[in-house]
Amino acid sequence: MATLPLISDEEASAEVLAVFDDIRAVRGTEYINNFWRALAHDPALLAATWGRLKEVIGPGELDPLVKEMLYIAVSVANGCEYCIHSHTAAARAKGMSEAQYGELLGVIGMAMQTNGLVTAMQVEVDDAFLA
Amino acid sequence: MATLPLISDEEASAEVLAVFDDIRAVRGTEYINNFWRALAHDPALLAATWGRLKEVIGPGELDPLVKEMLYIAVSVANGCEYCIHSHTAAARAKGMSEAQYGELLGVIGMAMQTNGLVTAMQVEVDDAFLA
Amino acid sequence: MATLPLISDEEASAEVLAVFDDIRAVRGTEYINNFWRALAHDPALLAATWGRLKEVIGPGELDPLVKEMLYIAVSVANGCEYCIHSHTAAARAKGMSEAQYGELLGVIGMAMQTNGLVTAMQVEVDDAFLA
Amino acid sequence: MATLPLISDEEASAEVLAVFDDIRAVRGTEYINNFWRALAHDPALLAATWGRLKEVIGPGELDPLVKEMLYIAVSVANGCEYCIHSHTAAARAKGMSEAQYGELLGVIGMAMQTNGLVTAMQVEVDDAFLA
Amino acid sequence: MATLPLISDEEASAEVLAVFDDIRAVRGTEYINNFWRALAHDPALLAATWGRLKEVIGPGELDPLVKEMLYIAVSVANGCEYCIHSHTAAARAKGMSEAQYGELLGVIGMAMQTNGLVTAMQVEVDDAFLA
Amino acid sequence: MATLPLISDEEASAEVLAVFDDIRAVRGTEYINNFWRALAHDPALLAATWGRLKEVIGPGELDPLVKEMLYIAVSVANGCEYCIHSHTAAARAKGMSEAQYGELLGVIGMAMQTNGLVTAMQVEVDDAFLA
Repeated sequence: MATLPLISDEEASAEVLAVFDDIRAVRGTEYINNFWRALAHDPALLAATWGRLKEVIGPGELDPLVKEMLYIAVSVANGCEYCIHSHTAAARAKGMSEAQYGELLGVIGMAMQTNGLVTAMQVEVDDAFLA
Repeated sequence: MATLPLISDEEASAEVLAVFDDIRAVRGTEYINNFWRALAHDPALLAATWGRLKEVIGPGELDPLVKEMLYIAVSVANGCEYCIHSHTAAARAKGMSEAQYGELLGVIGMAMQTNGLVTAMQVEVDDAFLA
Repeated sequence: MATLPLISDEEASAEVLAVFDDIRAVRGTEYINNFWRALAHDPALLAATWGRLKEVIGPGELDPLVKEMLYIAVSVANGCEYCIHSHTAAARAKGMSEAQYGELLGVIGMAMQTNGLVTAMQVEVDDAFLA
Repeated sequence: MATLPLISDEEASAEVLAVFDDIRAVRGTEYINNFWRALAHDPALLAATWGRLKEVIGPGELDPLVKEMLYIAVSVANGCEYCIHSHTAAARAKGMSEAQYGELLGVIGMAMQTNGLVTAMQVEVDDAFLA
Repeated sequence: MATLPLISDEEASAEVLAVFDDIRAVRGTEYINNFWRALAHDPALLAATWGRLKEVIGPGELDPLVKEMLYIAVSVANGCEYCIHSHTAAARAKGMSEAQYGELLGVIGMAMQTNGLVTAMQVEVDDAFLA
Repeated sequence: MATLPLISDEEASAEVLAVFDDIRAVRGTEYINNFWRALAHDPALLAATWGRLKEVIGPGELDPLVKEMLYIAVSVANGCEYCIHSHTAAARAKGMSEAQYGELLGVIGMAMQTNGLVTAMQVEVDDAFLA
């Protein structure tokens, strides 16, 4: 249960509805997920977060699916259950195959492992990496 | 300074040298970076870690550059300085442009932010994400 | 479900009951929350933890509400669900307004983001900050 | 050493200089710290990050010093060396006394400890906190 | 709910069943826990992970119970609910007494606390520790 | 460089010196490491932290070396450089062999990896672990 009740369309202010409408337009779906409905308690924070996310996750130099996988990777290391579920669903919606998902899991697991080993041994960065 | 001195080729056992040789062959370079030279104190751990990394980071369903960027994403969330430097260098060696790097930073930063917001509000996962 | 059953007043030893009584007296409520009832399996750990928390969270140089918000900030970064709920409830009980909560969320989210960006780029600390 | 060279005023584009000028105006100092000079490699990311930070850390419902202390709390839990130094310097510049700093350390340390204890025991959230 | 359905024995491929059989033989139980049934979606990842875990957690220089407690310690700091429950159960199955568990909790909590204090103050490593 | 200058014996108050003396007596060495000299800026925090650490790390149900290794495990997952160096030095002083250290590294690395895999897949806890 969230620390804040979710804001329905009926309860939303005009400022919040404008953001919800933009989310719907950009994503091509009527569905507004719980994150935005919780964040709607602070309309300025909602608008700033959505405005920025829209830019970051949108078209650019990196493939949209790659961005979702990067989002999953960060969310796993931070242990964010909601984010893992929402971005895994988004990655699948953008075409992630089960084979790609398996490789993603493999890379995340291996990165966690070598992060731990390097940190435990406090290995100094090679000059070669700083060139 | 590491918790263990780095093992030079001269100090390395036959078992360690065999791993070093495989690293050199797979990567097409004579250079063995500090991580492996520290890990060489435990030859079995060295062999297991390299053997697994070789598979995970190697050719597959995901682009090798994407794998490096995923590695960076996890390493940033875990705060692993060595890993960030080594995999950023590797990503550049595999062709990451500065524009791609900028987008990678943007996605990592945004993921950190929304991880924090969702976790703070303890938003419940939408049923839609669990279908 | 916890790894340990919660200890009721009836099951509590005299040593544990003495801590429970102090919690009740300091907080002005009969309610003992689950954290203390789980920790009561180790009476010495219970006594040490409560004794220290009482001092840390009590009156001092920082406002009690500020301390609760700091507690939330740390708990979010660590992903501690229980702590987030308990200290958000405590902050509200100490008068945190929804506007203040919105700003708290904003600061936590922004700190997470710039933590990620700085760490990703491994920016060196300015001499100006070390003076 | 950062993964990106710092951008001097001389190297900065007009877009970057405009952000630098705003930082100078808002903060009332000529000094631009390393974080912004590294981030300047991606002018859009620089502008978005500064634009948002300016709002979040600026005047509002929470005291500016409290915001800096919250920033420190998150940065410690995330282990961000740069952020800890920069926001500790900022907190002192905004009047944090050594006694307040001592209490801040105490709260952070205690939050880390109880985060660990609660997480280890997987204590379930009290219904009372969800009301 | 997991991001992947659990694979039953009936659904398992021959490659997966071979790993399940080895898990059963090594552990002396018919029970295959959810982690392996989820991981079974990627048979190569399943085989690599189990193969490595079997070696790491098996007989060696450190007592098997100590290894389970180390596993708990890491899992708590990473906030991994599943891992905390599974390795706490395993530690108890290997003979961890409630008094030992209490001390384990005490050490984890204290480590979290001093990690936070040291990180907040950015204390430099003593030369004495690097000898 | 720390956020606080280290307090020498000459600068220490009577209250701080009493703690330093106890550290010396308990540890059987004249050397006071940097952590305590930084913490000495807040004598009450110093006394409370040392008083608790002395109990936690002292003789009990778990072997003193095991406690040091647990401390390392938590510190690695939290990325605390100082703590990793100080407790690795302490573990060696208490007799940790290089073979034991290798196994410790192996367990930490594997725990990090499976933490990541389980969290990525959001595997539900088996009822068997909650009995």
